[in-house]
Amino acid sequence: MTKILILGGGGMIGQKLAHHLADNGWNGQPADVTLYDVDFRPNGAAGQQITGNLTDPGAAEALAANRPDIVFQLAAIVSGEAETNFDKGWQVNMFAGWTLLEALRAEHTASGGTYRPRIVFSSSIAVFGAPFPDQIDDEFLTAPLTSYGAQKAICELMLADFSRKGFVDGVSIRLPTICVRPGKPNAAASSFFSGIIREPLNDQEAILPVSDSVRHSHASPKSAVGFLIKAAGMDTEVLGGRLSLNMPGVSCTVAEQIEALREIAGQEAVDLIKPVQDPAIVAIVKNWPRTFDSARARALGFTSENSFKEIIQTYIDEDLGRS
Amino acid sequence: MTKILILGGGGMIGQKLAHHLADNGWNGQPADVTLYDVDFRPNGAAGQQITGNLTDPGAAEALAANRPDIVFQLAAIVSGEAETNFDKGWQVNMFAGWTLLEALRAEHTASGGTYRPRIVFSSSIAVFGAPFPDQIDDEFLTAPLTSYGAQKAICELMLADFSRKGFVDGVSIRLPTICVRPGKPNAAASSFFSGIIREPLNDQEAILPVSDSVRHSHASPKSAVGFLIKAAGMDTEVLGGRLSLNMPGVSCTVAEQIEALREIAGQEAVDLIKPVQDPAIVAIVKNWPRTFDSARARALGFTSENSFKEIIQTYIDEDLGRS
Repeated sequence: MTKILILGGGGMIGQKLAHHLADNGWNGQPADVTLYDVDFRPNGAAGQQITGNLTDPGAAEALAANRPDIVFQLAAIVSGEAETNFDKGWQVNMFAGWTLLEALRAEHTASGGTYRPRIVFSSSIAVFGAPFPDQIDDEFLTAPLTSYGAQKAICELMLADFSRKGFVDGVSIRLPTICVRPGKPNAAASSFFSGIIREPLNDQEAILPVSDSVRHSHASPKSAVGFLIKAAGMDTEVLGGRLSLNMPGVSCTVAEQIEALREIAGQEAVDLIKPVQDPAIVAIVKNWPRTFDSARARALGFTSENSFKEIIQTYIDEDLGRS
Repeated sequence: MTKILILGGGGMIGQKLAHHLADNGWNGQPADVTLYDVDFRPNGAAGQQITGNLTDPGAAEALAANRPDIVFQLAAIVSGEAETNFDKGWQVNMFAGWTLLEALRAEHTASGGTYRPRIVFSSSIAVFGAPFPDQIDDEFLTAPLTSYGAQKAICELMLADFSRKGFVDGVSIRLPTICVRPGKPNAAASSFFSGIIREPLNDQEAILPVSDSVRHSHASPKSAVGFLIKAAGMDTEVLGGRLSLNMPGVSCTVAEQIEALREIAGQEAVDLIKPVQDPAIVAIVKNWPRTFDSARARALGFTSENSFKEIIQTYIDEDLGRS
C-alpha cells in the first residue's frame, strides 16, 4: 500500500487532501495515509493522526523512518505571522524543511539508495516580489519581499539540490492564494481574500483591508488538492531540473471578486463588506504578484477554475453550511 | 576608525583585499582590518589575523561582538568540494552564513537598532543554471545546478531578508570566474581557467579538462577587489530591495583565452597546455552561464577588464614571479 505522509495535515488543505485520499485512494488503490501537525481539530480522521512539531529534535527522523512513498510538505507558519515573528518563521519554514530533507536523505542512504520519496512542497507565489512584469513566468527571479516568501524560495532551492543529487524526488508547486477558505480567518496576510466572500455568504460582516483595485491570483481549495495530487503522480524528469511550477489560477481584482459575489448572492451580501484599510496588510499585499503565466504547469495538466464565480460556487458546493 | 572584518581573509581575494586596504585605507583614512579564516599562509599580515572556523559554536558571536562596520563575507567551500562533500558544503556555505547573520542581528538588537553593518556577500554566477538565454540579467531565475550555487542563492535570499528587516545593510555581488588566480590550483571546478594561463607563464604544463569551445565570464582578482570596495561603499537604497548584482566581466571561449596567451607569451607557452578531458569538470562547467548583461552593475559604477589580454596582463603585473 502506498505510504503517504501529509505534513501540516491538520490544516485546511491537509484535511481536504486527506479526505480526498480517503474517498479516492491513490491511483485507484487504498492508501496508508499519515497526518502530522501541531494540532488537529476534532473532525473525522481521514488517516492516522500524529500530533507533534517538526522542529522538535528527532521528530523528522521518526517520520522518515516509516519511509513514506509520498510526502506532502504543507506545514508552515503563514505569511503574516512569519513577518511579525521572525524567529519562529525561519525555524519552522526553513530549518524544519532542512531537517526533513536530511532525515529523508539518511533513509535514502540507509536503504542503499533505493528509497527516494516523492516530495511535493507547497510553495507560494510569495517567492516573487515587486516590481513585476505583466506576466510572471517560471523564469522570473525570486526576489521575495516577505520573510515567508524568502523561506519558501529557500526551501525550493534545497529541495531542488537534494533532488538533483538523487536523495529525494521533489517538486515545488507555487500556489496562488487559496480562496475561498472555509472556517475562521487565519494570520495570513491574504486571509481577507476569503473573508470578503465567506463572511457575507454566512450572513456576517467582513473587513476589506485594502483597495478594491488590488489584483491577485486565486484558486479554490479543491483546485489546490488537484495540484497536489497531480504533482505527487507526475513524471518529474520532464521538468529538466527546474522543479518549481507556478500553478494556474484566476487573476482578478477585489472589485471583480465582489462583483462575482453580487451575481451569486446579491447586493445584500456585498453590503456586508466594510472597507477599513489596514496599512500592514496593504504594505504586504502591494508587493505580491498579480498575474501569472502558468503555461508550463498547464501544459503538464495542472488545471484550476476559469472565473471567480466558479471559485465561489466551489465554496458553496463544498463548504457552505459545514463547520 | 572604520572596523572592517574580512571572513575568508586567508584566501586569495581576502588577502588582496586586505593589502589594498592596508595600502589605501578606507575612504582615504586608515582602517581597522580583521582577517578571519581557518588558516593563513605565512605571508605579510595586512591586518589582525584570527584563525578560526565560523561553524564553531560561538565563533560568529565573538566576531559580531566587535561590531564591525563592514563585513566582507568571502568564506566558502569551493564549488568542486561542495559537490563532493555535500555535508561540509551546506554547513559552511549555508549554515555558517545564517549563524553570522543571526550574530549580527543580535548586536543590532543589543544596540537598540543603531548598529547595522554593511555586509558584502561574495556570491557567484553559479547561482544560475542551464538552459540560459543569450544574455543573463539580474532578473533571470536562480536555478543552480550545483550545491555550491544553491548555497550561494540561499545566502543571497537570507541576506536580502535580514536587510529588508533593517538588521543589516547587505549587498550580494555575483562574481564571474576570477582569473588569473595566482598560486596553486584549488578544488574549484573553475580552477583550470586560471591554470591554462598561469602554468604556461611559469613554464609549466597545464591540463585543459574541457573543450576549447567552452564560453565563460572572467574578471581579474584586481577587478574583484574593486567590486568589493565599490559594494562596501555604495548606496544600497538604489537597489530597490533587489540586492544581488551580476558583476561585469569578459565573456570569451577557452580558445579565445588561449589566443590571448599566444599573443602575449607566444606559441611555446600555448604548447604547454595539454587537453585531457575530465568528465566531472565537463559536467559541472556545461551548466555554467556564459554571458551576462551586467548593465545594472555597470550603471552603478562597477567596472572590469575589457579583454582577456588585459586580464592576463593584470596577472603579469601583479603576481607573476611572486610566491
